[in-house]
Amino acid sequence: MKIAVYPGSFDPVTLGHLDVIKRAATIFDKLIVGVLVNSAKTSAFSPNERVDMLRRVAGELENVEIRHFNGLLVDFCRENGASVIVKGLRAVSDFEYEFQMALTNRKIANDVDTVFLTTTPEYMYLSSSIVREVARYGGDISDFVSSEIEDEIKSKLFPRGEKAGEM
Amino acid sequence: MKIAVYPGSFDPVTLGHLDVIKRAATIFDKLIVGVLVNSAKTSAFSPNERVDMLRRVAGELENVEIRHFNGLLVDFCRENGASVIVKGLRAVSDFEYEFQMALTNRKIANDVDTVFLTTTPEYMYLSSSIVREVARYGGDISDFVSSEIEDEIKSKLFPRGEKAGEM
Amino acid sequence: MKIAVYPGSFDPVTLGHLDVIKRAATIFDKLIVGVLVNSAKTSAFSPNERVDMLRRVAGELENVEIRHFNGLLVDFCRENGASVIVKGLRAVSDFEYEFQMALTNRKIANDVDTVFLTTTPEYMYLSSSIVREVARYGGDISDFVSSEIEDEIKSKLFPRGEKAGEM
Amino acid sequence: MKIAVYPGSFDPVTLGHLDVIKRAATIFDKLIVGVLVNSAKTSAFSPNERVDMLRRVAGELENVEIRHFNGLLVDFCRENGASVIVKGLRAVSDFEYEFQMALTNRKIANDVDTVFLTTTPEYMYLSSSIVREVARYGGDISDFVSSEIEDEIKSKLFPRGEKAGEM
Amino acid sequence: MKIAVYPGSFDPVTLGHLDVIKRAATIFDKLIVGVLVNSAKTSAFSPNERVDMLRRVAGELENVEIRHFNGLLVDFCRENGASVIVKGLRAVSDFEYEFQMALTNRKIANDVDTVFLTTTPEYMYLSSSIVREVARYGGDISDFVSSEIEDEIKSKLFPRGEKAGEM
Amino acid sequence: MKIAVYPGSFDPVTLGHLDVIKRAATIFDKLIVGVLVNSAKTSAFSPNERVDMLRRVAGELENVEIRHFNGLLVDFCRENGASVIVKGLRAVSDFEYEFQMALTNRKIANDVDTVFLTTTPEYMYLSSSIVREVARYGGDISDFVSSEIEDEIKSKLFPRGEKAGEM
Repeated sequence: MKIAVYPGSFDPVTLGHLDVIKRAATIFDKLIVGVLVNSAKTSAFSPNERVDMLRRVAGELENVEIRHFNGLLVDFCRENGASVIVKGLRAVSDFEYEFQMALTNRKIANDVDTVFLTTTPEYMYLSSSIVREVARYGGDISDFVSSEIEDEIKSKLFPRGEKAGEM
Repeated sequence: MKIAVYPGSFDPVTLGHLDVIKRAATIFDKLIVGVLVNSAKTSAFSPNERVDMLRRVAGELENVEIRHFNGLLVDFCRENGASVIVKGLRAVSDFEYEFQMALTNRKIANDVDTVFLTTTPEYMYLSSSIVREVARYGGDISDFVSSEIEDEIKSKLFPRGEKAGEM
Repeated sequence: MKIAVYPGSFDPVTLGHLDVIKRAATIFDKLIVGVLVNSAKTSAFSPNERVDMLRRVAGELENVEIRHFNGLLVDFCRENGASVIVKGLRAVSDFEYEFQMALTNRKIANDVDTVFLTTTPEYMYLSSSIVREVARYGGDISDFVSSEIEDEIKSKLFPRGEKAGEM
Repeated sequence: MKIAVYPGSFDPVTLGHLDVIKRAATIFDKLIVGVLVNSAKTSAFSPNERVDMLRRVAGELENVEIRHFNGLLVDFCRENGASVIVKGLRAVSDFEYEFQMALTNRKIANDVDTVFLTTTPEYMYLSSSIVREVARYGGDISDFVSSEIEDEIKSKLFPRGEKAGEM
Repeated sequence: MKIAVYPGSFDPVTLGHLDVIKRAATIFDKLIVGVLVNSAKTSAFSPNERVDMLRRVAGELENVEIRHFNGLLVDFCRENGASVIVKGLRAVSDFEYEFQMALTNRKIANDVDTVFLTTTPEYMYLSSSIVREVARYGGDISDFVSSEIEDEIKSKLFPRGEKAGEM
Repeated sequence: MKIAVYPGSFDPVTLGHLDVIKRAATIFDKLIVGVLVNSAKTSAFSPNERVDMLRRVAGELENVEIRHFNGLLVDFCRENGASVIVKGLRAVSDFEYEFQMALTNRKIANDVDTVFLTTTPEYMYLSSSIVREVARYGGDISDFVSSEIEDEIKSKLFPRGEKAGEM
């Protein structure tokens, strides 16, 4: 059985992430979505919120599990019996960074390989930081994230907008 | 009448920015230079200083206006009746980021489109951060910014140099 | 009145080209689509066929004209009173080549400037050569070109398919 | 059972190709190496020679099959029950072209997805055309191709060298 | 006598840096490795630690000197009689940034030129930040840095690991 | 004594090439400009014409020699006692190709290393093929090539223009 890990911050999960999750779940027997908990980096949503949002949008996919991790990605893969890391590529700048990480990971753990999927064109411009920035100014994020989590993101990042809406 | 917005931090305005302003003012009927006031990001010059420097170097261009804004760029465009965003491109890394922003802006406001101008080769290496870095160490910035604002930049970023010069 | 030229081989015109034409026609007062006739380069469709296909898909746009040209692009611009060249950008490799051409054209004609539009994401993968390659093997091109010209392209590039269909 | 196709010209197969073949054979249950027979493009080695060289260097891998094909890649995948295309990425220029092809292939066949592997750094500079060019001038290709096929490549591309060696 | 400067943070020096140092020392008569002391940027190792590690791994090279500097790089070059800056290139993103810096440096000091060396493929993925990240989680860094400094890096960045190892 | 080789087609030599030649001649003790004679590739100017034009524009530089060569570049370097190859970089696409060639050359001849210079911004858009294309349509090439060879290029590539001028 081929187990793959799809790692990321998912701060928050976007429709672009969800597209990669669905396609990777078709290619591999089991997909573990690994939510990186990086104590050195501030995130808009807590690890629990990020895992919870992922469960709401991808929890019904049968062979997909959502977990958080910290430490080295290759250690997380080994603990879960995964031999493959899945990453989505959007642009050249993604490519260079991911390339570097893939080579590093193979160097420190040659039993774990990385495969890349191309992002679907309509989500190519999309990133968690763009979702956060648009939400913070009260912009419309319905084309960027699943409807299940849209309200949670807006009420967290644009609380004044919430109040304004109540008047 | 076609109104375009040229947004940026202009911290400070460089000869490369000025080149884009002049050319965009030729292409569009009216050009509004929008100085982004981002409370989350520290800048070397205050919004008022940045607007003031722009007025000194580009204020005589007839169809150019200088304003500051915060919030979403597309909202600033709509408030000013602008249907076009103008950006200057220098390098591949500019291109990827600007591409992503242009697609996001069209997604959240499909009545606002982005056009790109190429930077004139002699200013291709130039950025506000390079001006600041050279100025901070007392280097010569006369090839990088207009003579009207050169002294203001130097006295703000290299005050010790000023004093040394007075002795 | 701002007149812009959108040059290309259009061998054949794709939905990606059409997207650029429509958006450029909104930005400028008049848009001239210039079909490059390059005697040194073989094309799948003749200049007349390429102009004709463009007229069928974009002919109803009021401020758009379709013409062919050879020689230097800047000369074609001047003959038509155009001060702006419009190009669509899809990828980094486009960007580098177009950048080089834009700088060259400004060098040999400093009264003509180039502006770039980003390609709509869903057409980002699309090029005339991909249309030709898919059509030559009898693949489905309905997502790539306008329905008005789909049959003409297929019958020209996959004639055996046509015959097979007749039996 | 997951079946993947690794397509290419393999004119000739390099150590970089072989590295991708071995790693892809670990990730997927079955790997079909598809040798593209493109009548419009001249190749240094005939389709049979290219298949034969692949069999000599990769024939002992249990779950790997070598076949040639022409026509659309997605049709070849379907005929072989493959739902995945595997490609190796070396550089940014690879990335952009492969990205475009992956998106096109998903558009014309949404049941076939493409995954990318990174090339092992030591083979990153390597391509079939470099092997051919070095061999044509009698240079040493032993770091570039498997020893099983080194002599065949040299005697085909540098026949004068052969004669010289006989004297 | 041609004197070249190889500047960097070297926080810490990697095998990739060492490869560039050795090759540059072959090309130029004298090579000065310049350790940048940037008070505005936090570093994992102090300037003295970084210089010391460089001396341990490269100190035996006859025509190589290790020094730290702050201020403008071109001033450091002039103080040392150097007319050439040497940089290693790994990837496209390196290239763009380095290109910009090289052009800026020639603008502010036209008697100092920059030459680039390509990184050896096996170190192409390598950077000081990757060394620090792997070391911080207790990963194996023996393929990334010289054996002379491996323990110092590990004990500084993974002190808990040290203690654990002592038990 | 450090001898460097600057190889190229120089079909014809541009002001960008000349800029690299002058700067490389400052960095190295002796610079050999190597004109590649590639029988498989058609060129606009014969090897002798290309060498001759180089001599007219760069012949007065004391430590510069102009020669033609065919075969492997590293063999040409060794025959001339050169341990360094010099290349000029203009853009990311240059970078990737040159990177690949530099790594190949080091692989087949580890006593020859490649160093890169950045092209001066004002010549960044410039290439021999752009010179040829502009000249073929009778455009102005005086900003692209040295005055010593401008007429030769025009009379070779735009003979009808010559005749027209005679009338």
